[in-house]
Amino acid sequence: MQRRIMLTIAYDGTNLHGWQIQPGAVTVESVLNRELSALLKEEIHVIGASRTDAGVHAEGAVCVFDTGSRIPGDKFSFALNQSLPPDIRVLSSKEVPDSFHPRRAKCRKTYRYSIWNDTFPLPTNRLYTHWVHGALDLSAMRRAADYLIGEHDFKSFCNVRSQAESTVRTIYDIDIRKEGKQIDILITGNGFLYNMIRIIAGTLIEIGQGKYAPEKTEAMLLAERREEAGQTAPAKGLCLMGYEWL
Amino acid sequence: MQRRIMLTIAYDGTNLHGWQIQPGAVTVESVLNRELSALLKEEIHVIGASRTDAGVHAEGAVCVFDTGSRIPGDKFSFALNQSLPPDIRVLSSKEVPDSFHPRRAKCRKTYRYSIWNDTFPLPTNRLYTHWVHGALDLSAMRRAADYLIGEHDFKSFCNVRSQAESTVRTIYDIDIRKEGKQIDILITGNGFLYNMIRIIAGTLIEIGQGKYAPEKTEAMLLAERREEAGQTAPAKGLCLMGYEWL
Repeated sequence: MQRRIMLTIAYDGTNLHGWQIQPGAVTVESVLNRELSALLKEEIHVIGASRTDAGVHAEGAVCVFDTGSRIPGDKFSFALNQSLPPDIRVLSSKEVPDSFHPRRAKCRKTYRYSIWNDTFPLPTNRLYTHWVHGALDLSAMRRAADYLIGEHDFKSFCNVRSQAESTVRTIYDIDIRKEGKQIDILITGNGFLYNMIRIIAGTLIEIGQGKYAPEKTEAMLLAERREEAGQTAPAKGLCLMGYEWL
Repeated sequence: MQRRIMLTIAYDGTNLHGWQIQPGAVTVESVLNRELSALLKEEIHVIGASRTDAGVHAEGAVCVFDTGSRIPGDKFSFALNQSLPPDIRVLSSKEVPDSFHPRRAKCRKTYRYSIWNDTFPLPTNRLYTHWVHGALDLSAMRRAADYLIGEHDFKSFCNVRSQAESTVRTIYDIDIRKEGKQIDILITGNGFLYNMIRIIAGTLIEIGQGKYAPEKTEAMLLAERREEAGQTAPAKGLCLMGYEWL
């Protein structure tokens, strides 16, 4: 009897070529398929809830796969972590209904974009934060973020190579927190376009630097042209935090 | 005219063989000597305030050097960071009196030992925390730590290969903080013996696991024998945080 298993996965994207299988590159999907197939002695193809770019990290990525194995749902994590490389870990596993499809199920996804705001980068967090020198105006960034909340056409905040049919998405919340020299931008939405979070982060940083007024964000949205928004912030500052299934 | 310059340095110890120069190994001291000598076109030998082991990190290490250069004291950091590898950064620089010697000056040093306390390690902090699964009894760890505060002979908490003349040191404070799944042990003292913080951290972890009663800490100190204390926790959880000069 086939069962569907859900994995919650964390990875350090530094040396990975993102989620999706690519010939000749080490990706999270290819490593999971290889290790699951070896463990279960059947050909396994995971279905990821999201595809992250090369260099992006995750502390709560999700995928499912179907198996005939009789390993209890919560034990797949222990079994898999024996053979996974140290930059990928399965944090938990469980059985889910066969009908559950992680890309079709409605959810709230949260990403974190981390900035190290100091004169120089800090070696001990350089792999997980984007270094920005010069003080950022958090109040301006928060005012700008408010324009992005709600259902909008995010075409201006999307890589032009995106193949999404619709560029309309809903952002539920953007929370900008500062602790010491670290600034975290937490963004929750129903889905994100190609590079959308990195373009939002890059735009908010430029607004924090005074390059654009916060009010400009509304015009950026309405323009529906990628050139109107700010830069794409580097992949290493981004981390997929998790899902809330609705 | 010779001037004495103090550098505050941060490094990611993952790929470094510690502070001290060793033939054929990349160490912080050797990289700083090489880059300072190239920058200033004179032979520079830095004097470090502390030597850290291979794999130990720093966010506030200190060293001094003497130079005939006329670069303003606060500009050495900017100049040096142009050529340093990304795992070493000079956070600040300034001129200090010629008489200031970082190993003879009285100070309070603070180290942090970081533990990730969860079922599985987290890839995105695995290089900077020691993973311990199974809940730790923080209240037992805090009671044990109290026995270590003050002036004591720390011979039991010192690598037997130590060449220190005296094994008496003063610990001013041990603060054990938990945030989410991370536990940080912050230890401030007037100086630390070879592996002392890592043996204290390893012992506190074993007490948190219930292997020893907190009260056993007093007997460990009084025994003045390394075998009586707990294990040496791994280098990667340790970070030299900084100095307060008295």
